[in-house]
Amino acid sequence: MPHSDDSKLTAAVVASFQETNDLRLKFLMEELVGALHGFVRRTNLSFEEWGSAIDFLTRTGQKSTVTRQEFILLSDVLGVSMLVDAVNHRERSGATETTVLGPFYVGEHKPLPHGADISETVEGERMFVQCRVTDLAGKPLKGVAVDVWHADDDGFYDSQKPDYASDGPSLRARFTTDAEGRLFFRTILPCSYPIPIDGPVGELILATRRHPMRPAHVHFLLNAKGYEPLVTHVFIDGDKYLDSDVVFGVKQELVSRIELRSDAVMPDGLPAAGPWHLMTYDFRLKPGKGVAPKPMLPVSVDA
Amino acid sequence: MPHSDDSKLTAAVVASFQETNDLRLKFLMEELVGALHGFVRRTNLSFEEWGSAIDFLTRTGQKSTVTRQEFILLSDVLGVSMLVDAVNHRERSGATETTVLGPFYVGEHKPLPHGADISETVEGERMFVQCRVTDLAGKPLKGVAVDVWHADDDGFYDSQKPDYASDGPSLRARFTTDAEGRLFFRTILPCSYPIPIDGPVGELILATRRHPMRPAHVHFLLNAKGYEPLVTHVFIDGDKYLDSDVVFGVKQELVSRIELRSDAVMPDGLPAAGPWHLMTYDFRLKPGKGVAPKPMLPVSVDA
Repeated sequence: MPHSDDSKLTAAVVASFQETNDLRLKFLMEELVGALHGFVRRTNLSFEEWGSAIDFLTRTGQKSTVTRQEFILLSDVLGVSMLVDAVNHRERSGATETTVLGPFYVGEHKPLPHGADISETVEGERMFVQCRVTDLAGKPLKGVAVDVWHADDDGFYDSQKPDYASDGPSLRARFTTDAEGRLFFRTILPCSYPIPIDGPVGELILATRRHPMRPAHVHFLLNAKGYEPLVTHVFIDGDKYLDSDVVFGVKQELVSRIELRSDAVMPDGLPAAGPWHLMTYDFRLKPGKGVAPKPMLPVSVDA
Repeated sequence: MPHSDDSKLTAAVVASFQETNDLRLKFLMEELVGALHGFVRRTNLSFEEWGSAIDFLTRTGQKSTVTRQEFILLSDVLGVSMLVDAVNHRERSGATETTVLGPFYVGEHKPLPHGADISETVEGERMFVQCRVTDLAGKPLKGVAVDVWHADDDGFYDSQKPDYASDGPSLRARFTTDAEGRLFFRTILPCSYPIPIDGPVGELILATRRHPMRPAHVHFLLNAKGYEPLVTHVFIDGDKYLDSDVVFGVKQELVSRIELRSDAVMPDGLPAAGPWHLMTYDFRLKPGKGVAPKPMLPVSVDA
């Protein structure tokens, strides 16, 4: 029964989950208790520190809305999101590396024809993106749905803007690979940007003297029947934050050299108005179940 | 830089805190990252489970208000609160054992004279409480401020009720020890009660087939100059939940045998109206700094 001895406390808490029917949940709770108790013991956590943690977590929940998820951001800056990604993709077998989905995926994008300009009226340096999708043996895959999205020149995604619902998508679309596994489109060159720092996660970043920046990247989500969905980014080589991405999302293989071109026509034969950048990236898909991830937003929010 | 290998990820996250000026914060963050990453690796946490955790934590923050703290409740049912208490009170040297402050302490209570009835019009079985406060050598301590509070017959504290602000305190008061270190008062016998189960913590308790009950107890907070503040409960012997307190707060030494009496007068010589219970408990204080804990509520709540 009662434990005046704290060495018995952890065992008592673990034992409290012994009637849990769901054995996976039971295991998760036992491991969670072990991890939390180990942390408290190793740090001799003070009452004041515990109180600060309670307050921090409470405000992190309360900062979240239907268009913002501060707990995902916390998971991201502690490398937990990338680690969950890693433990679920241990065997790549030559397939393209994965990285985090991020909070700005909004579900299936609007299909556009090859060559379309997804930046429309958004200002920035022009970029032509050309990709090829194959299986692990290099065989082109036709009809693969590829959702792409990225931030604008100021570092914001369309879904972060107040008029998103009425303005509709910008810098995001869906393309479908042709018979040679190709897709290509026009957009602007994305730039590095800070994560939102006006909440508890921002306080943590500032208090620990980290920077809040993500290196420039374009998100890709590839779905093909009979293959594992691929959630990844392509990063822009040379970005000063490649070595210190605040969410730890960079993998060497995902960094693409971007060529600055002055050719009068782009690869699809249409004219270019001034210099432009060329991003070329090829994706290799691994056989598997074709279940696509769901967007992380909106989360359930109690009023 | 980029880590396509997850074994390097944890090291990269730990290294991200290397510029933190506050060395205690740096240590806490490094240990937190180690604990969280260890949990994810040992459990091979799935994307779906991670998403459920994000949603659970978000709702836990959003359930908290100025009169309710769901994250403290979560800390309580995972035994974290009691463990923090334990690691901060390793050397008792014969002093009375501590337990959790709980979310229902509201700050200094209204002083009442010895013998006062703190239950006023609240219905329940009558109880007379008599205590004595000494130092570790048994010398009576005079002038010790003793805050007491407990739940009513239905398991609710006054501060949980909608009319608390206008009705004022009930089943809570402050007594000051006399020259013999004594205090005594009248109240009702508390009963066991469930923690609030209409939020995320309640979902967890139900999903893991635990019960939500706390055994009957009276809270005591003792403050004396030159002594460590003592935060504790006195539990009612025979309660069926003593062995399975949902917040793990019970220690054998804190269980008090309650005598059922039929004497016509109570210990202070005043008449009793029918049978009554007698709780007798003596507290031993340890020399130390007399800094009292602050109430946990209200927490900061972003609107």
